Amino acid sequence: MTDPYRLISQTQAAYARAIDDDQLEQWSDFFADPCTYRVTSAASHRDGLPGGIVYCTSRGMLKDRISALREANIYERHSYRHILGAPYIVAERGSHVDSETAFMVARIMHTGETALFATGKYIDTYVIEAGQARIESRLVVCDSSRVDTLLVIPL
Amino acid sequence: MTDPYRLISQTQAAYARAIDDDQLEQWSDFFADPCTYRVTSAASHRDGLPGGIVYCTSRGMLKDRISALREANIYERHSYRHILGAPYIVAERGSHVDSETAFMVARIMHTGETALFATGKYIDTYVIEAGQARIESRLVVCDSSRVDTLLVIPL
Amino acid sequence: MTDPYRLISQTQAAYARAIDDDQLEQWSDFFADPCTYRVTSAASHRDGLPGGIVYCTSRGMLKDRISALREANIYERHSYRHILGAPYIVAERGSHVDSETAFMVARIMHTGETALFATGKYIDTYVIEAGQARIESRLVVCDSSRVDTLLVIPL
Repeated sequence: MTDPYRLISQTQAAYARAIDDDQLEQWSDFFADPCTYRVTSAASHRDGLPGGIVYCTSRGMLKDRISALREANIYERHSYRHILGAPYIVAERGSHVDSETAFMVARIMHTGETALFATGKYIDTYVIEAGQARIESRLVVCDSSRVDTLLVIPL
Repeated sequence: MTDPYRLISQTQAAYARAIDDDQLEQWSDFFADPCTYRVTSAASHRDGLPGGIVYCTSRGMLKDRISALREANIYERHSYRHILGAPYIVAERGSHVDSETAFMVARIMHTGETALFATGKYIDTYVIEAGQARIESRLVVCDSSRVDTLLVIPL
Repeated sequence: MTDPYRLISQTQAAYARAIDDDQLEQWSDFFADPCTYRVTSAASHRDGLPGGIVYCTSRGMLKDRISALREANIYERHSYRHILGAPYIVAERGSHVDSETAFMVARIMHTGETALFATGKYIDTYVIEAGQARIESRLVVCDSSRVDTLLVIPL
């Protein structure tokens, strides 16, 4: 399975599955180290602002984020369901692949109430090594600017 | 087309198309015989409960379910629209493939009113024979536990 | 990349990306010339009515539509997010491929308000030439009949 498209498609499916199954401790394993993980809004992205509702630059920071989430536990229990489009391959540069992927995320509250929570796209750079694709850089561009204050579980 | 990933991807697209186009009489053809089709909630699944809002163990039972739906006709007319993620291949065991696939289903009422109806994932075992993938076992895990009473058309 | 499935999958991802990134001037490039682009409802389609909330038969008409949208500018600013299922390949006929693809489109208003706007399927004929897939005919079948009056940006 060395076809980059397939590899990225499967990696994204695994990434979404880990989050939606509440296996958040696996989340950082999808990233290279160091890495970049940023969440921003389409408006900030369009205006060239760095954004950064969330900003992590290493696996350690990603892990810390999950630990904090597990310990704090002050938010109402909920889960996500990610649905991703096919990755659009923007460029292949040696072992690096740039891709963009549309997402919709539904949020399911403890009560069962379900709502469309976030839409947007991932702007990614993957590094492919030994048949594995890891995220070197993920910029999560949320279409709406309303999403930020509610953001607990990673997108 | 013997690549299991592609085969499952196309079979799932065909499955969703049959339901969403109201070709429900085709539904049972996507299954092996005997087979298992179960619908449960994430909470029941997590607690190891057998669940079973719906539970069928043969093509005949799947067909009966559709006949009942066609005859009863007491529910308000509506249709579904399934959007599926890429199948995540969990394991390949000879002619059997285990996969998981995220889904979102919108429900469109006769009046045109559209709402996000159900989200969750399929936990599937496919059997691949003569270039065809059939569902030997499908466990539909709905994220919300609210979905049950409204469930008429298959997920 | 001559595999029609992959080619169509990537072309659809690029199509959705162009619209959702507000690169609407690229929209007509995804079509052959002449071409057919029609939007209708599932009810009209089922009844064999020609439908045609929108009806274009050439790239020029598609371009005109975008120009009008850019100039008029009387509608409240909003963007779309398309999520597409895997294309279901209905038939391959020489350089032509017929496919159907489920879609969900969220609409994000200027205020950040996000809603499920439209669901349905594309019934497409692609022509494949020199490694490129172009849309010769796209019939957009919206599940709901309520969508029409709100339709500004292309689906």
